[in-house]
Amino acid sequence: MFKVNGNQIEEFKLYLAKFIALKGISATREGVVASLKFLTTFIKEQLNGEVELLPTSTNPAIYTELRGKNSETVLLYGHYDVMEADDLGWQTPPFVLTEIAGRYYGRGCGDNKGQLLAQLLGIATYLREYGELPINLKILIEGQEEQGSRDLNKLVKKYQTSLLANIDYVLVIDGSKNVNGKNVIRLGNRGLLAFELGVKVATRDLHSGNFGNVSENAALKLIGYLNKCYDFRTKRVKIPEFYADIQPATTQELEWIKKLPLPQGQPGSNMAYYHKLMFEPTFNINGMQSGYTGAKLKTIIPHKAFVRCDCRLVWGQRPELIRRQLEQLYHEELARGELEIKFLAEIAPSKTDSSSPYLMELIKTIREVTGDCLIEPIMPGTVPNYVWTDTLKVPTFTVPFANFDQNNHSVNENISRQAFWNGIEIIYHFLERKKRYYGTNI
Amino acid sequence: MFKVNGNQIEEFKLYLAKFIALKGISATREGVVASLKFLTTFIKEQLNGEVELLPTSTNPAIYTELRGKNSETVLLYGHYDVMEADDLGWQTPPFVLTEIAGRYYGRGCGDNKGQLLAQLLGIATYLREYGELPINLKILIEGQEEQGSRDLNKLVKKYQTSLLANIDYVLVIDGSKNVNGKNVIRLGNRGLLAFELGVKVATRDLHSGNFGNVSENAALKLIGYLNKCYDFRTKRVKIPEFYADIQPATTQELEWIKKLPLPQGQPGSNMAYYHKLMFEPTFNINGMQSGYTGAKLKTIIPHKAFVRCDCRLVWGQRPELIRRQLEQLYHEELARGELEIKFLAEIAPSKTDSSSPYLMELIKTIREVTGDCLIEPIMPGTVPNYVWTDTLKVPTFTVPFANFDQNNHSVNENISRQAFWNGIEIIYHFLERKKRYYGTNI
Repeated sequence: MFKVNGNQIEEFKLYLAKFIALKGISATREGVVASLKFLTTFIKEQLNGEVELLPTSTNPAIYTELRGKNSETVLLYGHYDVMEADDLGWQTPPFVLTEIAGRYYGRGCGDNKGQLLAQLLGIATYLREYGELPINLKILIEGQEEQGSRDLNKLVKKYQTSLLANIDYVLVIDGSKNVNGKNVIRLGNRGLLAFELGVKVATRDLHSGNFGNVSENAALKLIGYLNKCYDFRTKRVKIPEFYADIQPATTQELEWIKKLPLPQGQPGSNMAYYHKLMFEPTFNINGMQSGYTGAKLKTIIPHKAFVRCDCRLVWGQRPELIRRQLEQLYHEELARGELEIKFLAEIAPSKTDSSSPYLMELIKTIREVTGDCLIEPIMPGTVPNYVWTDTLKVPTFTVPFANFDQNNHSVNENISRQAFWNGIEIIYHFLERKKRYYGTNI
Repeated sequence: MFKVNGNQIEEFKLYLAKFIALKGISATREGVVASLKFLTTFIKEQLNGEVELLPTSTNPAIYTELRGKNSETVLLYGHYDVMEADDLGWQTPPFVLTEIAGRYYGRGCGDNKGQLLAQLLGIATYLREYGELPINLKILIEGQEEQGSRDLNKLVKKYQTSLLANIDYVLVIDGSKNVNGKNVIRLGNRGLLAFELGVKVATRDLHSGNFGNVSENAALKLIGYLNKCYDFRTKRVKIPEFYADIQPATTQELEWIKKLPLPQGQPGSNMAYYHKLMFEPTFNINGMQSGYTGAKLKTIIPHKAFVRCDCRLVWGQRPELIRRQLEQLYHEELARGELEIKFLAEIAPSKTDSSSPYLMELIKTIREVTGDCLIEPIMPGTVPNYVWTDTLKVPTFTVPFANFDQNNHSVNENISRQAFWNGIEIIYHFLERKKRYYGTNI
């Protein structure tokens, strides 16, 4: 079994340090060109691949295709763009890779530069040993993931019969391992529909004594409208057909859930817990504001109010249908201009058939390298994997390399040295197993 | 008819300038001692009265009693404390009286130093002319009005059988005239019950994907609770007995309402408009907040949420009863610690019987000085007049001298020169009419 050795450690770390230092901030585009150049050079020199830049409305994606001996073709997906790092609380400079107590710190170490580089280094190390790949690898490295992958589905649609044709399955190396440190394979994720309801009744706040009862209150109106789409008593969403198409968990999925550890201190059964997170949609308020919110009493009638909601959607639910039905529910209010709806996110849920033959192979690979591998049939959060499962219509496995406490999108982002090495080893071993498999079968 | 004349103008203005310059900020107590000294000196030298300082938990009240020839006794109420003046947007220094285009600008010009001084100057001018008063005047000048008159009721209870005994009626010179510039007499006002509902479900916000459905959402819980005390569909308050004791408007009150001008651009009838403002309670949200309220989408589950409500209460409603019933309504949630209620204000409504014989006399006085006088049976806003009508049990007439656009509590506070003069003239004429009345009746 290949293990990262002492000589390689410093070389691998150097690549990561250089990549982290280049920034590549998604929203401001700072360091995007330098990051593209770094990856292009790496792919050319280390993987002997040609790079194609795929333009988007902002940061381009990188595409490369590495030919192997057999026709099996895997798409590896990652992203080079990172969040900003201007929050207070960083204990090391965010764009200087710093190793402390077995962890690499820096913006992007976990999300996703560290995980992306582990893939590329795994392939490079394999190529140094064997000279050629056992299967075809296509690699798509996005530059808009931290802006919600806004052009990804368009891109996939554009190239699905050319660059992205003939793919057997997709490996998404992103996210975090299980809280207890075990590696995990995810087969799907909840989708997301986020929207803001806004009410404006006047041009300024009014005195609640002088105008109370003769002027409308934006906050009261807003909550009235909110009651139309959510039943606060039964905790049920009242958007028509919201629940209609939800698909139940399969026997296999329920079995996998049974094996997942219930987080410490969580009451109830792990079955109920994970069912709620994986197979039930949510209705969530993530922010609301109206009027004066300082410390004193200020007897005003607020002239505007808003509430922002996000619904996590489960398999079977279609965000575009729910969006249309929400608009239909508020048809009259919208027509009268009394309510404004802004849609902020619309990402379909994703799911890969658990009977895919590639799954068992992946589980074995990971178990051989790290000792264990849990299956999460559905990730409770949202990633844009529907572009692979629904648009490209291929099985998709999400295999996070980063530690649970990677602090992605937060201060002191990190990847543990061990997790980084294991990532490299998993990719190397994945290719070695393919070589063995095709070697014995041909 | 007495009219402020050229010689007096500069003298009166000088007093106002000195009083404004002394500050007397309610919350910080800056200039309170100087303001007390100014008033004490004025009362001694100009009204020949002795001053008693009535201690409170913060700024003392000033009390004086001026003996007149007849036993009729009127209490004049005003306040010397002012709001802070640190908002941006003042076009003149707030504590330097500045005259521009027929208005005196400065913090307190309208609320209440200008109106208070007009009373004192009216009495002083009368005394210069006639040497003695026709009736007894008791004057109570509060120093806590801008902190919600927090000790006023206690004070009135303490002195109701001594200093504040044997009062025939109270004149409250505060507030603003009608929007069309006409003087007005107010016979009552709506009360106020203000409270905050707060929910806290965790120690920090959580990721709505990772925890959506397994962790509680503070904003959803809060709105659920809010639905228990307010029906957003029918717009009815669900606090038990909220509406039970409301007293209908009398025929006389309805007749007065009929004569009040409907504000420009206001649809509907003036009857419906003023009925809503004077004889119907409100349920108002003045502020609410939960979660992230910045510009972006942030898919969090907020761990806390609050909503602040103020109810304007009408005649018959008892704030202490409604407060207790609100607590009863949330008995279980409070016992479980799932909800917190903070009561922020509790002021009873006030009402003076419209058949009081003093009313016609006051109307005549004001009409003779200014040409017209409207009657507002109830002021929609809230002042602590219940201390006179309910605790002291005497008729109370609120007679604002200040212009409608006095900008009290705001920047560029002012009183129009004409309104200030008219105030002095009204008090002077009020005393002159008393003299004539008792002269012809004795």
